[in-house]
Amino acid sequence: MTTEAEILVINGPNLDRLGTRQPEIYGHTTLADIEGICRDEAALHGLTCRMMQSSDEGEIVQAIHRAIDDKIAGIIINAGAYTHTSVAIRDALSMVEAPVIEVHISNIYKREEFRHHSYISGVATGVIAGLGPVSYRLAVTALASHI
Amino acid sequence: MTTEAEILVINGPNLDRLGTRQPEIYGHTTLADIEGICRDEAALHGLTCRMMQSSDEGEIVQAIHRAIDDKIAGIIINAGAYTHTSVAIRDALSMVEAPVIEVHISNIYKREEFRHHSYISGVATGVIAGLGPVSYRLAVTALASHI
Amino acid sequence: MTTEAEILVINGPNLDRLGTRQPEIYGHTTLADIEGICRDEAALHGLTCRMMQSSDEGEIVQAIHRAIDDKIAGIIINAGAYTHTSVAIRDALSMVEAPVIEVHISNIYKREEFRHHSYISGVATGVIAGLGPVSYRLAVTALASHI
Amino acid sequence: MTTEAEILVINGPNLDRLGTRQPEIYGHTTLADIEGICRDEAALHGLTCRMMQSSDEGEIVQAIHRAIDDKIAGIIINAGAYTHTSVAIRDALSMVEAPVIEVHISNIYKREEFRHHSYISGVATGVIAGLGPVSYRLAVTALASHI
Amino acid sequence: MTTEAEILVINGPNLDRLGTRQPEIYGHTTLADIEGICRDEAALHGLTCRMMQSSDEGEIVQAIHRAIDDKIAGIIINAGAYTHTSVAIRDALSMVEAPVIEVHISNIYKREEFRHHSYISGVATGVIAGLGPVSYRLAVTALASHI
Amino acid sequence: MTTEAEILVINGPNLDRLGTRQPEIYGHTTLADIEGICRDEAALHGLTCRMMQSSDEGEIVQAIHRAIDDKIAGIIINAGAYTHTSVAIRDALSMVEAPVIEVHISNIYKREEFRHHSYISGVATGVIAGLGPVSYRLAVTALASHI
Amino acid sequence: MTTEAEILVINGPNLDRLGTRQPEIYGHTTLADIEGICRDEAALHGLTCRMMQSSDEGEIVQAIHRAIDDKIAGIIINAGAYTHTSVAIRDALSMVEAPVIEVHISNIYKREEFRHHSYISGVATGVIAGLGPVSYRLAVTALASHI
Amino acid sequence: MTTEAEILVINGPNLDRLGTRQPEIYGHTTLADIEGICRDEAALHGLTCRMMQSSDEGEIVQAIHRAIDDKIAGIIINAGAYTHTSVAIRDALSMVEAPVIEVHISNIYKREEFRHHSYISGVATGVIAGLGPVSYRLAVTALASHI
Amino acid sequence: MTTEAEILVINGPNLDRLGTRQPEIYGHTTLADIEGICRDEAALHGLTCRMMQSSDEGEIVQAIHRAIDDKIAGIIINAGAYTHTSVAIRDALSMVEAPVIEVHISNIYKREEFRHHSYISGVATGVIAGLGPVSYRLAVTALASHI
Amino acid sequence: MTTEAEILVINGPNLDRLGTRQPEIYGHTTLADIEGICRDEAALHGLTCRMMQSSDEGEIVQAIHRAIDDKIAGIIINAGAYTHTSVAIRDALSMVEAPVIEVHISNIYKREEFRHHSYISGVATGVIAGLGPVSYRLAVTALASHI
Amino acid sequence: MTTEAEILVINGPNLDRLGTRQPEIYGHTTLADIEGICRDEAALHGLTCRMMQSSDEGEIVQAIHRAIDDKIAGIIINAGAYTHTSVAIRDALSMVEAPVIEVHISNIYKREEFRHHSYISGVATGVIAGLGPVSYRLAVTALASHI
Amino acid sequence: MTTEAEILVINGPNLDRLGTRQPEIYGHTTLADIEGICRDEAALHGLTCRMMQSSDEGEIVQAIHRAIDDKIAGIIINAGAYTHTSVAIRDALSMVEAPVIEVHISNIYKREEFRHHSYISGVATGVIAGLGPVSYRLAVTALASHI
Repeated sequence: MTTEAEILVINGPNLDRLGTRQPEIYGHTTLADIEGICRDEAALHGLTCRMMQSSDEGEIVQAIHRAIDDKIAGIIINAGAYTHTSVAIRDALSMVEAPVIEVHISNIYKREEFRHHSYISGVATGVIAGLGPVSYRLAVTALASHI
Repeated sequence: MTTEAEILVINGPNLDRLGTRQPEIYGHTTLADIEGICRDEAALHGLTCRMMQSSDEGEIVQAIHRAIDDKIAGIIINAGAYTHTSVAIRDALSMVEAPVIEVHISNIYKREEFRHHSYISGVATGVIAGLGPVSYRLAVTALASHI
Repeated sequence: MTTEAEILVINGPNLDRLGTRQPEIYGHTTLADIEGICRDEAALHGLTCRMMQSSDEGEIVQAIHRAIDDKIAGIIINAGAYTHTSVAIRDALSMVEAPVIEVHISNIYKREEFRHHSYISGVATGVIAGLGPVSYRLAVTALASHI
Repeated sequence: MTTEAEILVINGPNLDRLGTRQPEIYGHTTLADIEGICRDEAALHGLTCRMMQSSDEGEIVQAIHRAIDDKIAGIIINAGAYTHTSVAIRDALSMVEAPVIEVHISNIYKREEFRHHSYISGVATGVIAGLGPVSYRLAVTALASHI
Repeated sequence: MTTEAEILVINGPNLDRLGTRQPEIYGHTTLADIEGICRDEAALHGLTCRMMQSSDEGEIVQAIHRAIDDKIAGIIINAGAYTHTSVAIRDALSMVEAPVIEVHISNIYKREEFRHHSYISGVATGVIAGLGPVSYRLAVTALASHI
Repeated sequence: MTTEAEILVINGPNLDRLGTRQPEIYGHTTLADIEGICRDEAALHGLTCRMMQSSDEGEIVQAIHRAIDDKIAGIIINAGAYTHTSVAIRDALSMVEAPVIEVHISNIYKREEFRHHSYISGVATGVIAGLGPVSYRLAVTALASHI
Repeated sequence: MTTEAEILVINGPNLDRLGTRQPEIYGHTTLADIEGICRDEAALHGLTCRMMQSSDEGEIVQAIHRAIDDKIAGIIINAGAYTHTSVAIRDALSMVEAPVIEVHISNIYKREEFRHHSYISGVATGVIAGLGPVSYRLAVTALASHI
Repeated sequence: MTTEAEILVINGPNLDRLGTRQPEIYGHTTLADIEGICRDEAALHGLTCRMMQSSDEGEIVQAIHRAIDDKIAGIIINAGAYTHTSVAIRDALSMVEAPVIEVHISNIYKREEFRHHSYISGVATGVIAGLGPVSYRLAVTALASHI
Repeated sequence: MTTEAEILVINGPNLDRLGTRQPEIYGHTTLADIEGICRDEAALHGLTCRMMQSSDEGEIVQAIHRAIDDKIAGIIINAGAYTHTSVAIRDALSMVEAPVIEVHISNIYKREEFRHHSYISGVATGVIAGLGPVSYRLAVTALASHI
Repeated sequence: MTTEAEILVINGPNLDRLGTRQPEIYGHTTLADIEGICRDEAALHGLTCRMMQSSDEGEIVQAIHRAIDDKIAGIIINAGAYTHTSVAIRDALSMVEAPVIEVHISNIYKREEFRHHSYISGVATGVIAGLGPVSYRLAVTALASHI
Repeated sequence: MTTEAEILVINGPNLDRLGTRQPEIYGHTTLADIEGICRDEAALHGLTCRMMQSSDEGEIVQAIHRAIDDKIAGIIINAGAYTHTSVAIRDALSMVEAPVIEVHISNIYKREEFRHHSYISGVATGVIAGLGPVSYRLAVTALASHI
Repeated sequence: MTTEAEILVINGPNLDRLGTRQPEIYGHTTLADIEGICRDEAALHGLTCRMMQSSDEGEIVQAIHRAIDDKIAGIIINAGAYTHTSVAIRDALSMVEAPVIEVHISNIYKREEFRHHSYISGVATGVIAGLGPVSYRLAVTALASHI
């Protein structure tokens, strides 16, 4: 792994509202905080981070396409609500040869029944859920160890 | 409730085709007609209406985000097909503290099985369905009485 | 629509306990209050109201039969628990040619799974749920616009 | 079988509306016509008919109890909507030692999914469905051959 | 109905074993007895019977085709096990314009779960089940009244 | 607990037939016997019993309403067949603040699949099933220890 | 029933933690308290109690085997979590000829869906649930009346 | 059919990656190749092709709207992942009066369970799947024969 | 592909009735017409056609066996009703190394629920449905391009 | 057991292709080999074998009928695909008083979901699966020990 | 296969009670008898048997581990109730490279629904069920032919 | 967090075989390696590790009980097969007030359907799956940040 390797961190719909959205579930950390955590942890491993947030399913698909073209070293994705509904994002991720880590801030298996199933898990390398913003830090570490 | 209170009326995919789309189900009223009905009824209650129509799931999510920032007094949403498939819109609406009324022109419970379930109902204050364009007028009245 | 038109308002089992029954769900309005709301709103539209409450499935069926014989102008029905279990009331309503509005005080789609299905919706003109006593006022307005 | 044997014919909710109710499904024959058909056919077999119609689940249960006490020779039951929802009537019928014939005017297996299951069939001797008023005549004949 | 009208009586797989097959369920009547019952009852109504028994799904399909070509006046079918598995026979029967009566000797709704569903019922005029050989006699009577 | 406290014992449809109904399941004890057992056991605990039996869903609902108004000290209910079908009785019981014991003479979990689910259990304090008439005696004891 | 008759009281996994485990569900009574309650109640009926607690499925199976060999007069079992997962304990209990009472401290029918099904109920004489430690006392009484 | 008739060919999410995406499933043909195939085949039938590819559900809905306004002669749609998740595209297609052919490169019925259901099929004229790029050529031919 | 290559066209039960069978679904084309279409299209591609129609599941299985022995160049199969019920035909087709195209005249995905599942699709190369007799012509073309 | 006892070995659809059919699943043994194995093993037990193979459901039913008439000493049946779809063969086997052994060459419980259910198992004495041609040899031995 | 090869015979919970446990299902043969049968049959094939019975899931897992370490030549397992509930035993067996035969004394497919599914079958070589103690003898023979 | 804090690492059935068990799924790391990884990572955070491995459900329950008594600072649990079947372990974990991290070496969501559901997730703080031995290292880090 060379120091110039880049990873992509994708955050899906409503995650731009972190810090204000249902803090009893998601806590007070903002998306900017999370991006900082990722960058800091990545730097420790000699990685750089490409950040991306979108509420648009198609944009996330295209960001994954670009990452493939750029031979990204790994992807961390918190697809938010699209975790449970998007076959398109699953299909895009299944084209990625680099490791993919699915991340969730909350423990989705403790919430509504429809959040227990993820279209992403079946094509991800691994899943980290329920650990709050720490989930992202661990995901960067995990990617670093798989690259 | 002061006269300057504003409500948001969201219409989802294909609702821009009202008046020409399957008139045996949806009737001949156009989206412009419906927006007029909402404005007129809102005016009676000292409310103003912000109108929004989109076939894009992500745009609807963002419109809800903006409405939260603007401390909107209430939301009326006919999410069309996204009623049955969008967890992202549900998640956005669950952040809204103002009352939310789910509206449908047709009686969705009389149609195909997959239209009987709504992701919106579980986070809405109330539901009004099957009454044609009148559904919207009643929704404005309902909001007015909940604000 | 002539001023002498009459509508029937049916309230099913346990709704005679409104005001004291689970006020955290149903509020403090009594059945008498609701009947007053209906009468007042009906009067605004030149309609009179026939009121009926029963905890007996057969009595509700027969009240619908009588309403058909009397060529009632419309029916508002909150079938309470029978919403989810009575094919007999559904069958009686399916004989009604006048518009039928299904009403619920609480948002049944937010409650136990077994309350998400209604035998009434499939034969009703429209559904209004979750708006408290306002649901009835809107239902009268809706009927008035459909008669 | 002696000539004084009596059979009970039970008609459930909404069947008092026969002749006017959805004639495209149920035809123009009235309940009185059907009772006449039963009496005439029964007379051919030396049987008398006790007629009973009710929209009330409890009344039907009690009519079955009385029939048991009177050692009725057989029961024909068109439980209407209660066919699909009443365990109470099923339980009452399961106490009957005489033959029980379940009858339906329409072919319930061609209609809505929820009409395909009958709580009555599992405790009846036989089932006759879809033959219009003839269903009753055949049921009387069937009873006569089982008594 | 003229005296020369002909009806077709179809018996499916294993029904040629009647009389010896599980007599606790099917009784001691043989297929020949049943055919005699049908002929006798048919004669009373001025009808003649064409008899057909086969354990072969395709042969039953073809017998129905021939009956259509011959403008048969009605069909009585006890499809035996094919009742629960044959879409082919259902499709053949759906081409028949004459009335079709589905017959069962035993009450299939009291037996194994997989016998509760019939592919035939959805395209039959009516169903008669559970009355033993009498089921056939009633079916002939029913056909006579529908021709 | 004072000696004047009163409890309500409700028996649902068909339980008036105890002693003659399917004695292999329900035994030879009559309803009068059971009422005697309840009164005797209640007396030991300084309680009086109000007895109620009905085959009518609505009457049971109303008996519960009256018990609430009379501030009954506890309810024992064997809802019979309504155990499995009545949301109305469930709703009435959910308004009761006093303890509610659900009772069954037979072990409903050993019987038909549709008897395994109870609408009552979810709103009852406890359940006692399968112990014959003893179930009632234990239920009185249980109520006494909860009052 | 002679005074020397012995009954077996089985408590399954985690029940050794009673008193400290989720007291909002299970209360503050300890397992020792419950064993005392059982012994006291048993003594009233001239019975002695054999106590057994284990978190091990196999040990519970073997305790039941020994009880059979010892011709135990009855078994009270709160299988805890194994209620919902153990066919092995069910099979062992199905060999017991003496009466078996299934006991639960909490009302399992009010809790998570997976706790609504019991493998034990289908082979038990009766079930007592939701009455706290009183459940055990009633179970001893029930056994005494069945021995 | 005049030579100026135009058809619309829609390709959904990830189909812009054809040729590089999972070639073991989708082969090496690129989207440009497929568009060439369509144009060539269309020219043989005197048709012109309007091409459209998008990973965005809303854009596809709008492309269908424009096609309706332009009185397109037919639509070929490979909705990719949206085949299985988009009610919005289904609703848009249900407004199209011209023939619609659903196309898939791979045989979706051989793949994961969630790909066996298509929201498109229920509103399409026909379906062609599993034939690789040939699927498109046949679809153009099929449209030509239906216009 | 040499000019002497032969393909097999299989038509299942009831397809010999095409032209007269439910023309609102299947149109007025006869089986002979379809065989002509196949022969004509095949000739264009230098292929000859072996035709086979049967209402017998076993005969279809054996026709497939013979085709394997004869090293047939491809198979087109419209298994009719057996599409939904025959594992035997599926098993026979799974032995075929040549391409297999499943064909349907009507769009089976628009019809009854039980027609949405095909046992054939899982072992076919591709599926063409809903395009009327054109389905067969396209299937010949598809085979030609896969041979 | 006398030396003249005869057993019937039935092989269903596609089993005549053994040796060439999917050898990775079924191996290289032919049907003739298997029949030899059966005869040899039977001879060791003083039994003779009647062999029967058919792809026709009806023929298999009739072969079972004849075996009953001939008072066959036992039946070994590998119904192939009909294992999963034929109620007719199940019904025929349920008339057999001699022991019936269900045999499968492959382990059907490891294959597609639809092969996990057998209509035969419920009426067979025993099942032997997954042991290749040895399955048949063991089945003969098993029959010999049950006769 | 050398004469020193050893096989492991595992019997799960409650099988130590054979001979006394529900003899109408399991017969009068004891576990010792079965072990004798296995040893005798094994000796015929030059195999020795290691016997193991436990009611403890963990012990069975460990016995399988030891067998793997000892390079056991094959395993016969009747996991009793754990057949239907133990993923742990399945996982242990999936590590075994030697052949594994699943055995059942009774025909589990004829018993309660929850006994129709086996976690073992999916990782076993073959299954022998319903043949009483003979099942074990055949299993030894089967192993001998697979080693 | 003081340096003396202790955490418990639980490994369930078959995990003692790591390194030799299905290395294509679990890799070549042994349990001892994993324990070393945990200790090393824990030391970095000033934590000590208590290690526990068992194939016995009851032993794992008791280890959790002891950890509660010892006021353990956190638990990491890879329950192996018990993840999917053990309510007893779930119940034990639900008594733990310290954070609990569920760990899996493989991505269970990519494997057999029955491995997609975990009884542990609903009571765990978070879940880490699919990252091989790294999963444990991250879990220690996660615990350290939650203590």
